[in-house]
Amino acid sequence: MLEGGLTQTARTFLTAWHSVVSSRDFARLPDLLAEDVELRAPLYWKPRQGRDTVARLIAGVGISFGPVHYERQWVSVDELALEFRTTIDDLEVKGIDLITLDETGRIKNIEVMLRPPNALAALRVKMEALLAAGAN
Amino acid sequence: MLEGGLTQTARTFLTAWHSVVSSRDFARLPDLLAEDVELRAPLYWKPRQGRDTVARLIAGVGISFGPVHYERQWVSVDELALEFRTTIDDLEVKGIDLITLDETGRIKNIEVMLRPPNALAALRVKMEALLAAGAN
Repeated sequence: MLEGGLTQTARTFLTAWHSVVSSRDFARLPDLLAEDVELRAPLYWKPRQGRDTVARLIAGVGISFGPVHYERQWVSVDELALEFRTTIDDLEVKGIDLITLDETGRIKNIEVMLRPPNALAALRVKMEALLAAGAN
Repeated sequence: MLEGGLTQTARTFLTAWHSVVSSRDFARLPDLLAEDVELRAPLYWKPRQGRDTVARLIAGVGISFGPVHYERQWVSVDELALEFRTTIDDLEVKGIDLITLDETGRIKNIEVMLRPPNALAALRVKMEALLAAGAN
């Protein structure tokens, strides 16, 4: 865990973020998002905006993933890079969350990248099923 | 540019890396790689090993990309996360290089993630053409 310049704000955010991800209690996600949060999702180029939309999309990704194990973590004041390992069905997945916090410690920007491509294809299938079911 | 804990080794590496990428002089890549370097490429799950193999693959990716613009950079001693923006043909691409340096300042591990998926598909086409042409 690499924590150059870890502020109390970042520390508090990280504790809450890891708690939501590990408990899969995505109902607590909106509290961690700025109202005008912007998401750059692994599947789409175009950013998605707004607390409700972004919370639904992040929850959809979280529901699609197996258990998420965070690995290296870079933090510099309000800019975070969080490497993780997870699964989608039986596929192994690596990913990174690039997060900018606002002054209240909520996510202002989040960009998520994943590898390899078969994991992205599997995520797309799951996200489309969730959207079609209206579950998110 | 976020540079918590930037050592002289990391600084020297970064200068050389940015010089190779911006000049597209990929013949200088092997000098930046440890002999047993391991690459986790965006297109494949399985790591690829060894200086010659990895140099060829990174050069192939570099040749496939348009100009690469580095954005945020997180450095903690020998662990680097380098965010970039580029193009593949007319597609916009975001990516990140996750790099571990060895004690001589060469890359021991490099993992590259990209978004969105259409950029990965375009990269695959270009890499397969390069491999088929024996150009890498």
